[in-house]
Amino acid sequence: MAVKYELVKKCKHTKARVGRLHTPHGVIDTPVFMPVGTQATVKTMTPEELKEIGAQIILSNTYHLYLRPGHELVRDAGGLHKFMNWDRPILTDSGGFQVFSLGPLRKITEEGVTFKSHIDGSQHFISPEKAVEIQMNLGSDIIMAFDECTPYPCTHEYARNSLERTTRWAQRCKRAHTREDQALFGIVQGGGFRDLREQSAKEIVDLDFLGYAIGGLSVGEPKAVMYEVLDYTVPLLPEDKARYLMGVGSPDCLLEGVSRGIDMFDCVLPTRIARNGTAMTSQGKVVIKNAAYTRDYSPLDPECGCYTCRTYTRAYLRHLFKAEEILALRLFTIHNLYFLLRLMENIRAAIMEDRLPTYKEEFFRKYGLINEEN
Amino acid sequence: MAVKYELVKKCKHTKARVGRLHTPHGVIDTPVFMPVGTQATVKTMTPEELKEIGAQIILSNTYHLYLRPGHELVRDAGGLHKFMNWDRPILTDSGGFQVFSLGPLRKITEEGVTFKSHIDGSQHFISPEKAVEIQMNLGSDIIMAFDECTPYPCTHEYARNSLERTTRWAQRCKRAHTREDQALFGIVQGGGFRDLREQSAKEIVDLDFLGYAIGGLSVGEPKAVMYEVLDYTVPLLPEDKARYLMGVGSPDCLLEGVSRGIDMFDCVLPTRIARNGTAMTSQGKVVIKNAAYTRDYSPLDPECGCYTCRTYTRAYLRHLFKAEEILALRLFTIHNLYFLLRLMENIRAAIMEDRLPTYKEEFFRKYGLINEEN
Repeated sequence: MAVKYELVKKCKHTKARVGRLHTPHGVIDTPVFMPVGTQATVKTMTPEELKEIGAQIILSNTYHLYLRPGHELVRDAGGLHKFMNWDRPILTDSGGFQVFSLGPLRKITEEGVTFKSHIDGSQHFISPEKAVEIQMNLGSDIIMAFDECTPYPCTHEYARNSLERTTRWAQRCKRAHTREDQALFGIVQGGGFRDLREQSAKEIVDLDFLGYAIGGLSVGEPKAVMYEVLDYTVPLLPEDKARYLMGVGSPDCLLEGVSRGIDMFDCVLPTRIARNGTAMTSQGKVVIKNAAYTRDYSPLDPECGCYTCRTYTRAYLRHLFKAEEILALRLFTIHNLYFLLRLMENIRAAIMEDRLPTYKEEFFRKYGLINEEN
Repeated sequence: MAVKYELVKKCKHTKARVGRLHTPHGVIDTPVFMPVGTQATVKTMTPEELKEIGAQIILSNTYHLYLRPGHELVRDAGGLHKFMNWDRPILTDSGGFQVFSLGPLRKITEEGVTFKSHIDGSQHFISPEKAVEIQMNLGSDIIMAFDECTPYPCTHEYARNSLERTTRWAQRCKRAHTREDQALFGIVQGGGFRDLREQSAKEIVDLDFLGYAIGGLSVGEPKAVMYEVLDYTVPLLPEDKARYLMGVGSPDCLLEGVSRGIDMFDCVLPTRIARNGTAMTSQGKVVIKNAAYTRDYSPLDPECGCYTCRTYTRAYLRHLFKAEEILALRLFTIHNLYFLLRLMENIRAAIMEDRLPTYKEEFFRKYGLINEEN
């Protein structure tokens, strides 16, 4: 079995749990946050730096790698791990979310999705079988079924059609998938409708995947809706498989997701806001370009142990951003990822010691809420 | 004495020499290439990475730091070394070259130069005294006199006026300079005129600086002109002081400069072309975006031991550049600087072993000439 979830400890107070996800490229402690390496690189970072800050697994994007440099080129390079020099686990998405996000540039049929490349406008077709073929060529440890990401808001009828197609596509993905050294995860859809989430969860779980994702969240709905969907959907997933909430990575959503039984998360948020000069710190958000930091010779986050905070002052970091220096983007990316990876480490420790609610309360008191998308 | 040049070995065949430059932040083996950190950062690199590839000293720009973040801010941060986390030697230029390069945005008088900021158009004035004050606040180990960089081509009269003003300004710089923990270097001007270079060298050497630069070269003149000027100017400089050829960094010019008795060089060339996807390799230039490298799974330079060449394929590097990933800029910067720093190391070894001409010949046979500006 390519990937096996091992339950280590259940939280006494919430649905949170600590586990170990065994993969061909090593064991991952869960709950885990996966930095995003869209184009076979986590923007600005080397693999060695990712390891240094404790990244256990990264996510890469099938849509982007399919278009550039092409999955056959990556296969011939020895697979994605070798191509990008990352020997720890990799999860690839199915390309579904990116393709659906293209809006008017794509057309969905039962067979699959026809779309135009955002790079050169060339026309392409991805079916469930194709999405699996690409991911088999990439050689990631965990691959995702090709789903139809249901938008928010949408009608009950749209969401039902969408989830039912997702189920049929999930079956086709399962049939097409032949690599025993990688695990295929199924994706539950159903929008914000409880009956549809229940229907989708049942259908997808019946297909028996090695892990399950909850899709169609973090697509513009209020956080309260996301939490509600998690409240009634997670309990429908088997306890002995990993549960993955796609596209979520703000500190508050991570804490709320974990408390509802989620084991895996990914999001471009920490790396994207880093390149924009926004840091997640133990005292809340720091927007470094603010004039207040011009002569601030203290570290970005006094409680942080990352390279950036150990080495540089806010005044220097602000200077680098104002001067549009690339080092600025690196230093903030290091910090934000370190911050989230430490958060997950602390969450795991809190679960192990049955003090997650206290930890959560303290964290929110110090950090406040981050009013970004997830 | 802030900086002392120690002659270690003279080449038997050329005017080249190996030396040690003692500074408050450590000893530099010469001939040396100084990577450029214009805005208090060598673009894309951390100080630790610079050390790892063997950078002994870096250059930073007075003009840029004066405008942003401001020299008083850097002083209050504890000086440039502390501000940017670089504890090895730093040389700062005087700002003269940058200010003169502003063209219509600046006006030169005997008192100094009035100019408009390239950032926000605000008006500024830098005199020799001001240039020294700024550099004292930055706290670099070696600071440069404020000179008037003579353009090429220009008339004999223009070049004479320019060099004579440079001498008067050099005197003013010397009077204004009071920090004993940093060395002030004088700059020889005189354009492409032998009599004027002789006049300038005599006047500047009479002022007795701790080191001497040859300015006004690498400003658009043919390389043959540069070499000729070096041929008759370098012998006019005292043997017991370091000699610095400003703004020069292509492999051929480094070899030719060393052979003519130059000890120090700086140039943005390796880092600038790196960010454009051009690598200096033992087999000549590699322009990585070329289609020929699409499926080239060999290292960038098979003879190179840098992180980039040890770790990645040309196919991956090309992908990163095509996808406009920041990691690409880092990896090429690492490689090009490593390449030049190894070149200088090899040159020093060749001088020590009295085989510089052979080394030079072999290098050119393998590398060819790089047809970039210097």
